[in-house]
Amino acid sequence: MPNTKTQNDLANAIRSLSMDAVEKANSGHPGLPMGCADIATVLFTKVMKFDPSQPWWADRDRFVLSAGHGSMLLYSSLYLLGYEDMTIEQIRNFRQLGSKTAGHPEYHFAPGIETTTGPLGQGLGNAVGMAIAEAKLSAEFGADLVDHHTWVLAGDGCLMEGIAQEAISLAGHLKLNKLTVIWDNNDITIDGSVSNADSTDQIARFKAVGWNTIEVDGHDQDALEKALLTAKASDRPTLIAAKTTIGFGAPNKAGSHAVHGSPLGKDELAAAKAQLGIDYPAFEIPAAILESWRAAGTRSANARGAWEGRLAAADASLRSEFERRMEGKLPEGFAEAINEAKRKLVADKPKVATRKAGQMALEVINGLLPETIGGSADLTGSNLTNTSHTKPFTATDRLGRYMRYGIREHEMAAAMNGIALHGGFLPYGGTFLVFTDYARPSIRLSALMEQRVVYVMTHDSIGLGEDGPTHQPVEHLTALRAIPNLLVMRPADAVETLECWQIAVESSDAPAILALSRQNLPALRITDSSENLSARGAYRIAGEAGAAAAIFATGSEVAIAVEAQKTLAEQGMSAQVISVPSMELFARQPQSYRDDLLAGVKARVAIEAGLGMSWWKLLGDKGRFVGMEGFGASAPAEALYAHFGITAQHVVEAVTAQL
Amino acid sequence: MPNTKTQNDLANAIRSLSMDAVEKANSGHPGLPMGCADIATVLFTKVMKFDPSQPWWADRDRFVLSAGHGSMLLYSSLYLLGYEDMTIEQIRNFRQLGSKTAGHPEYHFAPGIETTTGPLGQGLGNAVGMAIAEAKLSAEFGADLVDHHTWVLAGDGCLMEGIAQEAISLAGHLKLNKLTVIWDNNDITIDGSVSNADSTDQIARFKAVGWNTIEVDGHDQDALEKALLTAKASDRPTLIAAKTTIGFGAPNKAGSHAVHGSPLGKDELAAAKAQLGIDYPAFEIPAAILESWRAAGTRSANARGAWEGRLAAADASLRSEFERRMEGKLPEGFAEAINEAKRKLVADKPKVATRKAGQMALEVINGLLPETIGGSADLTGSNLTNTSHTKPFTATDRLGRYMRYGIREHEMAAAMNGIALHGGFLPYGGTFLVFTDYARPSIRLSALMEQRVVYVMTHDSIGLGEDGPTHQPVEHLTALRAIPNLLVMRPADAVETLECWQIAVESSDAPAILALSRQNLPALRITDSSENLSARGAYRIAGEAGAAAAIFATGSEVAIAVEAQKTLAEQGMSAQVISVPSMELFARQPQSYRDDLLAGVKARVAIEAGLGMSWWKLLGDKGRFVGMEGFGASAPAEALYAHFGITAQHVVEAVTAQL
Repeated sequence: MPNTKTQNDLANAIRSLSMDAVEKANSGHPGLPMGCADIATVLFTKVMKFDPSQPWWADRDRFVLSAGHGSMLLYSSLYLLGYEDMTIEQIRNFRQLGSKTAGHPEYHFAPGIETTTGPLGQGLGNAVGMAIAEAKLSAEFGADLVDHHTWVLAGDGCLMEGIAQEAISLAGHLKLNKLTVIWDNNDITIDGSVSNADSTDQIARFKAVGWNTIEVDGHDQDALEKALLTAKASDRPTLIAAKTTIGFGAPNKAGSHAVHGSPLGKDELAAAKAQLGIDYPAFEIPAAILESWRAAGTRSANARGAWEGRLAAADASLRSEFERRMEGKLPEGFAEAINEAKRKLVADKPKVATRKAGQMALEVINGLLPETIGGSADLTGSNLTNTSHTKPFTATDRLGRYMRYGIREHEMAAAMNGIALHGGFLPYGGTFLVFTDYARPSIRLSALMEQRVVYVMTHDSIGLGEDGPTHQPVEHLTALRAIPNLLVMRPADAVETLECWQIAVESSDAPAILALSRQNLPALRITDSSENLSARGAYRIAGEAGAAAAIFATGSEVAIAVEAQKTLAEQGMSAQVISVPSMELFARQPQSYRDDLLAGVKARVAIEAGLGMSWWKLLGDKGRFVGMEGFGASAPAEALYAHFGITAQHVVEAVTAQL
Repeated sequence: MPNTKTQNDLANAIRSLSMDAVEKANSGHPGLPMGCADIATVLFTKVMKFDPSQPWWADRDRFVLSAGHGSMLLYSSLYLLGYEDMTIEQIRNFRQLGSKTAGHPEYHFAPGIETTTGPLGQGLGNAVGMAIAEAKLSAEFGADLVDHHTWVLAGDGCLMEGIAQEAISLAGHLKLNKLTVIWDNNDITIDGSVSNADSTDQIARFKAVGWNTIEVDGHDQDALEKALLTAKASDRPTLIAAKTTIGFGAPNKAGSHAVHGSPLGKDELAAAKAQLGIDYPAFEIPAAILESWRAAGTRSANARGAWEGRLAAADASLRSEFERRMEGKLPEGFAEAINEAKRKLVADKPKVATRKAGQMALEVINGLLPETIGGSADLTGSNLTNTSHTKPFTATDRLGRYMRYGIREHEMAAAMNGIALHGGFLPYGGTFLVFTDYARPSIRLSALMEQRVVYVMTHDSIGLGEDGPTHQPVEHLTALRAIPNLLVMRPADAVETLECWQIAVESSDAPAILALSRQNLPALRITDSSENLSARGAYRIAGEAGAAAAIFATGSEVAIAVEAQKTLAEQGMSAQVISVPSMELFARQPQSYRDDLLAGVKARVAIEAGLGMSWWKLLGDKGRFVGMEGFGASAPAEALYAHFGITAQHVVEAVTAQL
């Protein structure tokens, strides 16, 4: 690319837009965009592969701004490169309601934003997942179709977060050589010098987990280009420690935490522009500079065209499968195959734990969907997330489809987000339900980004028994139901488990939590049903419509509810049992369905081996809840159910008290 | 200590009890106790300072079994050493309801259990806090009274968790030389070989964060003793990488993951005992072995006696202050000093953000209580957790009382647990409310362990504005209220903030979350009150008792509720505003108070800039909620409140619709 303007002019264009946007918004973070403008300039104008005219090109390099507060670096670059959505009006409307230029980069808002970042360390965690996806997809479809790099820009904040260690140790172990992390090594955090809070030798730290490392002056564009190209050719993931000055160009604030997260102020902004030689008005990049940037933006257009030629020339079935995968469509016949499996379950009536039922469902699903990538945070034998198809994905076998995530629940979730964002895969991963706490920041981002990620969370109540309160979720169903756009599903038996798995697989815009029991449960859905009843969120599983008492239950407690209903019937009281595999799905049903289901109900009782908070909207003033009121205890499961009064007898009493 | 039995006999006593207890419970983890029996034997019989006859002796060494699943190692050792509570009956009742020998070690269950562990990495995180507390208390009261070591036994699971990196990098930075981590380096995790999931060079990793490192054969007791003594004398924290065989002694299962978390089974157990030379019956330790252990248990009795002599001889005021601090009692006059500050606030009527009000409260509290240790996860200027008293605690200044935790929310919380558990201190720490997600596993343990830890969580709603949905808590109040025994408090103005701080300080058995606003709020509590009204959880802050409409609100929305009440009054409708600083405290009030407060109320509306789930029990069938229904957005705060309809007008409409 023949630049008509100097590289320095290009970098200053980022600085100028970033300073101006933050100043106009009177809010934001100028320090990183000014400090990393040289890095972004070299990366975007000389090294990275992408095409603004086809921003979702499957074989593009991915760029992740893990230090999401520096969002103006990304927005400025996207505008300068010619991404259509990122207009100068968007830059002017930085951090305003409805703009694509949110305070932190939001996935879905504009092409070029590959993931939502801001919560520190998450972008780095996602990028490891993207590199996993690339490696596997390339192994499946060939380097002709899939051969791209993942670039991360991370700050000290990202690296100090615990998830960073989980991410880099996993990446090093898997030798994800197409992953490069550029560390904005500016010695500054919000509270002051990094040295106030940390003395880590980052080079030694990354080497200890198998990374290639390079140190470079983050304002020397030639050296940066060389470092980036070296990283790209590495046989291991690479850390580029780029020494930068935060707020580069601000005469009084550069190099200090004062420039991290506040507008420069009118005077400092003017002085910075003077020092940098920026002589053009706010938001008005001179044509020559813009042309140079736009020319750089077309750099990979030929490569993209050649790639399209290769795709067009590929075997038709390979091509259509690649396109299906990248579009996230399910293969034809998926639903029918699930129904077939369901008919078999209805006939067999297996009395199994729902974790085991989950494995049975996965055995079907993994056979149907080559796009699943399973895994567990070192609890495979407990989560039962493996099937006959799941040979491990390793440093030497990229065709494997089972991730041995290690004891890294947080990175498992962040990596799954990255795998889903990359496209071509459906990631699922397991741990105990109680340890969703360890992964919660990433689960929240699955929901916020509307990604199809499936969390297989077993040992879902005091029913796990002896491991005790540290391992027994009591508040977790509530806490997860509180996350917007997260499908929390707790199936009652093998049929419901299969149905919930089907819902999770078919969910194109929401992640799912499958809360599964450790203990065996009886078969309750013992009549054939081609309809996925779990998809209604709540439905009558026992008793008659119109019965005066409704007993709501989920998962392992549905069988207890059915037992109570039988006892009530023996006592001459008519009750119905409503299984509630998903409150979120029930809330989405038309009011007519909800009204019909509960017509004639006078007494409401819910039973769940957890806390009651999420039930009261459904139970109302007079309803009663049978469940937990505090932490669990260490004892065999049956003893705990009796001890905490989660029994059919208590349900019967609660119903009787109301009628 | 003259051992009448060999050291090997002593270690085998641990193995024997552990195997037998797991076998009898038919549940548990024999692998670690068998593998680490030599380590425990050397540590407890030769190196550590403690006295079973005075198990809470303030200057004892602390031992943290971070790998909590190996609980039988600890229980066996405590029994053998002669801790009175840990009887052989308790060992026999391992993992049974009501026993002190829970599946994982539970703090409060028995002396010698210094913290609750099981969730991996937490114990290590706690231990860093304990070492911080020791260093500071020693600086304050002198090495004559405070000079002890913190020992941690951690497995690969602990080290692989992200929190471990936060913990060790903080410990290394602070040069916590009285902290030693013994790594049970057995090459095995639940899913198989460590090498399946991790390739970390742990020695290099710990060196990179400033630790001393030692490698040793974990079954060579002489080498272990030397390593432990070397670690004790180090000027930095020390990692001892102890090479062990998991399930040492089990002829067929040792060295494999099969021995990690399941009983050995009758045959393997018998074969293990034969191989180890254990010829005595289950749960029956021969007298000579028990005597050797018990003799070791008395090893530090003289040192403890000498320490008591030094304490008795100390200056009376120093002694009484030391005892006050260790008992966690507040100094006399604390409540009156708070009331004095409150009277001033009532007079001054400051219009400040509650985060600022929190700092004003802390300025008073830190002046009164030398035991506070403040801190922030690199958001000091935002959380406003610093006061005029808070010079930093550093590697060279142990008298400092402000922790620069760095961008380590999870370790901040875990360290605070450790500081609180150690005794002598009241830890508080800040970050944004949304990032409680990062610290949630440790917050849960604060609650489970009933520790006085104060979480200063600012930027508590969409009111933070432009940073957008990644930084805006919407589900967090709900998710935190769901944790048992956690006081979630969201004060409405400066007076309530001071009251909530008082409650947090006086809370001897529960941690507190203070949810504080970024934005300024008007003074609402403008009449003097010596009673801490916030302690009632909910109280009438505006309007008349008996008014037909009750508007419930918390924090920044109380002012909106008051505005709505005024509008309703202008329209001739009588309403009252109930401020609800804490749902948990309201739930604890006598029913009479609750009934009186809401007598005559026909319409109920709640307003909170978060999701509604936690409100429905109070609102009932006909109540209405004005709040969020999903994630937030990036825009100025005022624009967001209008956009999401969290307005007085909507409250007025909701009330009107009901009346």
